[in-house]
Amino acid sequence: MKAFKIDHIGVAVKSAEEASKIFKDVLNLEVEEEVLEDRKLKVAMVMVGDSRVELLEDMDENGTISKFIEKRGEGLHHMALEVDDIYKSVERLKAEGYRIISEPAPGAGGTIVAFVHPKDVHGILLELVERRQNNGQK
Amino acid sequence: MKAFKIDHIGVAVKSAEEASKIFKDVLNLEVEEEVLEDRKLKVAMVMVGDSRVELLEDMDENGTISKFIEKRGEGLHHMALEVDDIYKSVERLKAEGYRIISEPAPGAGGTIVAFVHPKDVHGILLELVERRQNNGQK
Repeated sequence: MKAFKIDHIGVAVKSAEEASKIFKDVLNLEVEEEVLEDRKLKVAMVMVGDSRVELLEDMDENGTISKFIEKRGEGLHHMALEVDDIYKSVERLKAEGYRIISEPAPGAGGTIVAFVHPKDVHGILLELVERRQNNGQK
Repeated sequence: MKAFKIDHIGVAVKSAEEASKIFKDVLNLEVEEEVLEDRKLKVAMVMVGDSRVELLEDMDENGTISKFIEKRGEGLHHMALEVDDIYKSVERLKAEGYRIISEPAPGAGGTIVAFVHPKDVHGILLELVERRQNNGQK
């Protein structure tokens, strides 16, 4: 069981379109825009190598991202690492005393995601991601 | 001129050794510890794929990282993208109205680094890195 990649960095922004400009127009990165209706988020996915920067705009003024911006302003929100086995990772974390604030659950695009409490990771909201479509035997 | 990789994520922590535990002991990532005497930083470099998570501990209580922690607590501090030509990138950013808070200057290990103002990048303290040892002709 191990982490092996920065899957993405999540950034809380007021406007995903506005925030994507520097990446698209100046740094010449590819950006894909998506609306996640169920999570009430507009996302500009900035493709950087085999990782992404996800610019997250809340469509709900009481949503997590809105609240984060209200409290701390726009900026870096979470870091997601890809792991090879999310259930074993979460089990191991719990055994070591780390609190899981969101148990493994389906995320976008065939992923399973979980979140570790930022108080247990020195202020980092740490997301773990397993991409099941890449290992069909599971 | 383009960005092509997340070079690293910088995290402000009180103890680099303490913060590295979850990455080393639980997520089975390789961690290299370094002391940057000139910048008065202890750094635990967590190797994740071809990127890194840099856990930054200030040895100066009035240093940038100390001040960040005092104001906002421990957590995600900056995001660094690798670019193929840092001087052209900075020139282009300036032409588009982005403020550079730290002009291209030598960083650790043969790099040239620059920082863009977080107010112009939606709260992201954005570092650009060019790794000169990889392209000897420059």
